[in-house]
Amino acid sequence: MQVKPSKRLETFHNYEKPFRERMSELERRGKNIISFAGSDVYPFGYMPPKYVQEALIKAAKKNLTMYPSIRSPIGKRFREAVVAREKKVHGVSYDPEDVIWTNGVTHAHELLYFSLLDPGDECLLLEPTYLTWCEFGYVYSDKIISVRGGVEENEWQVDPDDIRAKITEKTKVLIMVNPNNPTGAVWDRKTVKEIIDIAGEHDILVISDEIYDLIVFDGLKSVPAASVANDVPVITLNGLTKNWLAQGWRVGYMLFHDPEGKMEQFKKKLMDYVDFLLLMPPTMADAAAEVLEKSLEKGGMDHIDALNRKLEKHRDYLWKRLNEIDGISCVKPRSGYFSFPLIEGIGRIWKDEREFVYDLLEHGVYVRPGFIFGKVYGQRHVRMSFILPIDMMREGLDRLEAFMKNRMA
Amino acid sequence: MQVKPSKRLETFHNYEKPFRERMSELERRGKNIISFAGSDVYPFGYMPPKYVQEALIKAAKKNLTMYPSIRSPIGKRFREAVVAREKKVHGVSYDPEDVIWTNGVTHAHELLYFSLLDPGDECLLLEPTYLTWCEFGYVYSDKIISVRGGVEENEWQVDPDDIRAKITEKTKVLIMVNPNNPTGAVWDRKTVKEIIDIAGEHDILVISDEIYDLIVFDGLKSVPAASVANDVPVITLNGLTKNWLAQGWRVGYMLFHDPEGKMEQFKKKLMDYVDFLLLMPPTMADAAAEVLEKSLEKGGMDHIDALNRKLEKHRDYLWKRLNEIDGISCVKPRSGYFSFPLIEGIGRIWKDEREFVYDLLEHGVYVRPGFIFGKVYGQRHVRMSFILPIDMMREGLDRLEAFMKNRMA
Repeated sequence: MQVKPSKRLETFHNYEKPFRERMSELERRGKNIISFAGSDVYPFGYMPPKYVQEALIKAAKKNLTMYPSIRSPIGKRFREAVVAREKKVHGVSYDPEDVIWTNGVTHAHELLYFSLLDPGDECLLLEPTYLTWCEFGYVYSDKIISVRGGVEENEWQVDPDDIRAKITEKTKVLIMVNPNNPTGAVWDRKTVKEIIDIAGEHDILVISDEIYDLIVFDGLKSVPAASVANDVPVITLNGLTKNWLAQGWRVGYMLFHDPEGKMEQFKKKLMDYVDFLLLMPPTMADAAAEVLEKSLEKGGMDHIDALNRKLEKHRDYLWKRLNEIDGISCVKPRSGYFSFPLIEGIGRIWKDEREFVYDLLEHGVYVRPGFIFGKVYGQRHVRMSFILPIDMMREGLDRLEAFMKNRMA
Repeated sequence: MQVKPSKRLETFHNYEKPFRERMSELERRGKNIISFAGSDVYPFGYMPPKYVQEALIKAAKKNLTMYPSIRSPIGKRFREAVVAREKKVHGVSYDPEDVIWTNGVTHAHELLYFSLLDPGDECLLLEPTYLTWCEFGYVYSDKIISVRGGVEENEWQVDPDDIRAKITEKTKVLIMVNPNNPTGAVWDRKTVKEIIDIAGEHDILVISDEIYDLIVFDGLKSVPAASVANDVPVITLNGLTKNWLAQGWRVGYMLFHDPEGKMEQFKKKLMDYVDFLLLMPPTMADAAAEVLEKSLEKGGMDHIDALNRKLEKHRDYLWKRLNEIDGISCVKPRSGYFSFPLIEGIGRIWKDEREFVYDLLEHGVYVRPGFIFGKVYGQRHVRMSFILPIDMMREGLDRLEAFMKNRMA
């Protein structure tokens, strides 16, 4: 008899896997495919500032082989460094006790669903959103409610009416990603404040994933949800993955903004659980604390300006070319690594994004289908990364252009 | 309104926490307490062999900032090294595809419960057992069935009759820890074979936690469950924590012994999930692969002999002294770091271990209460570590002896 996975595991789907498998199959047969899927900057040669690697080597030399604990001296150093960083960068005040480390922000997504949602609890997911917010959500709940989190015609700013319309008595959590992956939107202060106010009116906990907080273009600045939240409880997620290009370190953190102590018991309980899991290697935590400290020194974040200037150039190229293609339109991304163009022919020429993505694959280009970034409000779109070298993008876009010309004819 | 944790998180209890809190409180008031709780050898100066640290520094210098994947070249190296190690050390054959990495074995405990148990599924837990097998089990299931996994009068060898008696049609999984934490038992080949045979008869999946496989004394050898399993599916857990004293690396792995392909779908699904979680820092995985490779070279495991000789001496001291104390009896531990003495007065002088542990704490000694190592078959016992320096043990045992003399009078 086959060993059956639990329903939890059965419910989990890596929705992108079939597309990746098809891509591998084509590549094995000798087809050249340019992938715009990339979210890992490492293969394209983007490297962390020098002090990141130095911090890791320094930590490795300390031979930190003790079990990890957020309550240890290393935990203390880590939390204090996070607090200092949030204060300096965003002017938001936290206590070290408000910080819980996680092994990357992806892991925080899973942990928060695990620890917040019971059957029947409703969770508003502002779509488009990052894919693990979808996948892990469905594992832990059947009440993940798709909300129109971005209005394309309005630079992907949030639609507060749709949030209001979807609130019920069972709504417990609202999840937002700002700056947004996959749209590249950076929500303005008014928008963020509006979300927070709605949550406050209805006693809803806000989870704000702000991993791209400094990867913002065109002179804009991202607005941390906690900075406008006053008495509304907010859990903010961030980490070393984007601002220090250290994806492989798996260092993330949760910040509890909780002026009225509404999360006090929850936070303690979650911290106990995280501590019990023994997940964070002290070497990584110690190195991360050092990185955060170094980043507060003079010039410690200079690499971000250089990175953003480079990404802006890449963004400009991709965005301009996409809008020149008949049948594709794309809102200008203001942050991050991605654009989220609308494929106008989906629903007419192609049944859905699945069909579009498979069709395009046969013509040598891979893009990620929109539904994985939002079951409802990700539809008819695809995510395309602009972290690729411009030459590679050019070749891919030439193929996409020829493909669209052919299909639109 | 307070933010309510999910039932899952509510169900989680760190059962030891109140005892630790009491200990801290006493220490704050100036009381000196000798703790026999220790499972972390780092604070007592046990260090990994030199090549462990060298491997980490070497990996840190590679600047491996890519996202982790078990399917990457680092994943491949890691899996091949694990396979080579299992073959050389235990003569058990695996394919690299049979290996899934986890962030420590504790994390594997949680993952396996998450991915195997549905409501109604019964899971046999051979008690006494390691505490996370209890805690995480209760989070993911209300059908964790305590089995008399060790008969104290018979050197903590398993009681097959009790396993048979507790099997129902709903029994899905059997979990064993061998060499055993907390008893120090090393089950002989006949015993292990008997467990496997029972599981085979009833189509039960065996999970065997073998993290102490080489920390074995008195010339004994541990018998891996997979080595006697033939056609019975077994998931074996191990890692770098004990054999290389690298607790803080958080490197563990699962091995799928599955000659009839009964776990094929489950394994793939679980691997997808683990890969999606993005938990293993490539630096740690790469260093771990190097450590496993080095350990296969001539003299690569010499440190284990030295460690075991030292631990045997400590074990002898603790075991002899415990048995000299009126009201305490202790089976000789044959492996690991721990003894699991019986406190005869529990049930008479003290209501339960809780009362005993609190009472003893006031007299300057902390031991871990038995029920956290088995709700039923951990009772009336306490776990005492012998990784402490002998002088520290002496002082603690003097206090324990005086305490018992007083209470037994």
